[in-house]
Amino acid sequence: MRSDPLEHEQDDTQAARPTPPNGFRFSSTDAGLAKGARLDLWLAVADDAYPAAAVFTTNRVVASPVAMSREHLRLTGGRVRAILVNAGCANACTGQGGDEDAATCARWVAELVQCDPREVLVFSTGVIGKRLNMPAIERSLPGLYESLAATPDALEHASRAILTTDLVPKVSSRRIPLRDGAFGSMVGLAKGSGMIHPQMATMLGFVFTDLMLGDSTAIALRSAVQQSFHRIDVDGDTSTNDSVLAWSSGRRSEKPLDFDDTAHAGLVALTDISIDLAKRIARDGEGATRLIEVRVRGAASDHDADLCARAIATSMLVRTAVHGNDPNWGRIVAAVGRSGADLDTRRLRVGIGDACLFEDDTPHPDREPTAAAALRLDPVVLWAELGRGACESVYYTCDLSADYVRINANYRS
Amino acid sequence: MRSDPLEHEQDDTQAARPTPPNGFRFSSTDAGLAKGARLDLWLAVADDAYPAAAVFTTNRVVASPVAMSREHLRLTGGRVRAILVNAGCANACTGQGGDEDAATCARWVAELVQCDPREVLVFSTGVIGKRLNMPAIERSLPGLYESLAATPDALEHASRAILTTDLVPKVSSRRIPLRDGAFGSMVGLAKGSGMIHPQMATMLGFVFTDLMLGDSTAIALRSAVQQSFHRIDVDGDTSTNDSVLAWSSGRRSEKPLDFDDTAHAGLVALTDISIDLAKRIARDGEGATRLIEVRVRGAASDHDADLCARAIATSMLVRTAVHGNDPNWGRIVAAVGRSGADLDTRRLRVGIGDACLFEDDTPHPDREPTAAAALRLDPVVLWAELGRGACESVYYTCDLSADYVRINANYRS
Repeated sequence: MRSDPLEHEQDDTQAARPTPPNGFRFSSTDAGLAKGARLDLWLAVADDAYPAAAVFTTNRVVASPVAMSREHLRLTGGRVRAILVNAGCANACTGQGGDEDAATCARWVAELVQCDPREVLVFSTGVIGKRLNMPAIERSLPGLYESLAATPDALEHASRAILTTDLVPKVSSRRIPLRDGAFGSMVGLAKGSGMIHPQMATMLGFVFTDLMLGDSTAIALRSAVQQSFHRIDVDGDTSTNDSVLAWSSGRRSEKPLDFDDTAHAGLVALTDISIDLAKRIARDGEGATRLIEVRVRGAASDHDADLCARAIATSMLVRTAVHGNDPNWGRIVAAVGRSGADLDTRRLRVGIGDACLFEDDTPHPDREPTAAAALRLDPVVLWAELGRGACESVYYTCDLSADYVRINANYRS
Repeated sequence: MRSDPLEHEQDDTQAARPTPPNGFRFSSTDAGLAKGARLDLWLAVADDAYPAAAVFTTNRVVASPVAMSREHLRLTGGRVRAILVNAGCANACTGQGGDEDAATCARWVAELVQCDPREVLVFSTGVIGKRLNMPAIERSLPGLYESLAATPDALEHASRAILTTDLVPKVSSRRIPLRDGAFGSMVGLAKGSGMIHPQMATMLGFVFTDLMLGDSTAIALRSAVQQSFHRIDVDGDTSTNDSVLAWSSGRRSEKPLDFDDTAHAGLVALTDISIDLAKRIARDGEGATRLIEVRVRGAASDHDADLCARAIATSMLVRTAVHGNDPNWGRIVAAVGRSGADLDTRRLRVGIGDACLFEDDTPHPDREPTAAAALRLDPVVLWAELGRGACESVYYTCDLSADYVRINANYRS
């Protein structure tokens, strides 16, 4: 049977050149929406209006495409025929004009695909307060539609078209063996980088599958997001545009080998892929040099475990210490103490990697060399045991470097 | 009459060379507790056991001196004869040995001053997890006691002895004219720099006065701290050692000219000095080049106003944009939106200095040059109006520079 999803590492041999799952075609182009010569507009079209579910930002200020896509999903009961995604411009804080631009994009795509405009979703990422370059989009759409393909290249181009200050495209895929000898497929793409924080961030995630997710898609997605995208932090900021979409063609309805039903196999794969993408986003945080995994155990409740893990993961002092290879457990203790989580200070244990640096109310400076070695690994594992119960939590973040400041003092987001 | 304390600027002519208020004597030395040749141990002794009140860190992990000083105040009903303050070592996470060290310090001071050890408080700031160098303290105490003085030098030395990564000593003083022609005096000293966040931070504050604060000292201090030290943020971290002490000799009991009673005059001065010190701490945040004042208006409740101001002040993206002189109002809007404060997005107004950059759901890029000029001022004023009510809040922070990361990747705190 499969291992704990939190421990599950991606099978890179399968992921090397994944294709869009059965039922989906992709196409990307350089429409001139983002600075420089790069792909910045991506169209994904399904063979039919397939079930989809989305989780959107909790920010009270939502971008026009978020407001429209949320409404479209509500109106169609969660059936999607096509999505259009752009980088370079968030279409946020652009007033009624921005709303009209998002609606016009959906209408243009619907005319090409010959579907109801409400079956089209639009996602944008980039600068806030700037209007979309509509003539550029209108010019690019017919070519995009003509070039739709279900090839590894089409998928790779899509993963590049959604980046902003990300350095690395983020793709995660799974093949699920079915009882008829065929394979189901699930592929996820994401962009992250800045404004990454639990409760969604300037982060876009898209998961496509040919497994049946059916009625449980929305529930499965919420559960997967809770265990993945809601557990990463780059800088504590959430954006106006964060969205994660799960979209299922259901072309593979045969039962998977290891599961009683496809929906369950789909949920497990969706969670795996979401966690994998979330870790990739954290590792590729602005200015980051490595991933930090924060593990909290022994909490009195899940809520306390989350509070504590988040406090450590969001501590600028902890993250700069990791960047400087300093086994500074005192900063972890300070974060645990201010987190609000219930703890027994005399049973509190704190460590880095395999080294427990503080226990029985006593520091163990002799173990700092072991901890210093663990700080050079990727991921760096920071942990705390609160001595209060059996609940645990995992969060992901990255080290905080001077480059983070340089990038954000100079980038207009 | 006096102006709004939030607008009140310090009178530097009065503050140039303040002395300890009537009833207090100070002495500082280089005891070898902090790295380098610098003052790192400060003794303050009162002529008698005078009323005092303190606010301590909300961190669940508290340093030994904090636990002991809190208990001493409780046992004496808030009467203090002497305090001993050291930099270089926080005496936190040092177990029972650390508790004993703090108690020994109090006993040594009590023997010199000839008072009850419970009338002595101890404050420490510096590295976590390291034991105090007790022989060095024992050696230094007799000389410290012999050198006690009520001179401007003694006060200035004290302000230097408590610094860690601070660059600038922080002193704030007020002279309050009394009806008998004399003056009451109040002087505050503080250290800040890292781990600065609402709910107290690695921050020590000491306010001395010869006005009568009497029974209201504790209430006055809580109110003053709420409007000052709880409204600053450098990096979201609170420490194990944060403390603010207010201590009154009551030597000046004559009514102040502008007030009906000394306690009220004392409360106003205490609030003024606390706000002034808090702003100095934020301006001197690690790596900071200038102070940021965040002003939120039009909130539905005080709580909402605080939530919103704090979200803006703690946004790494906002603070890096200020550092880069980028009038990036979109990041302020994003912070407002995620703050949890109720807001009317169509009535939301956001600006920098005199420039309103977003109103009526529309950006005003033509005003960005005005905003860019305001970003070069000190303080930089960032503001938001939520369009929901009449409540407001002010927070203080500093710009976030690459130097912050350098300092914290290399400093063991």
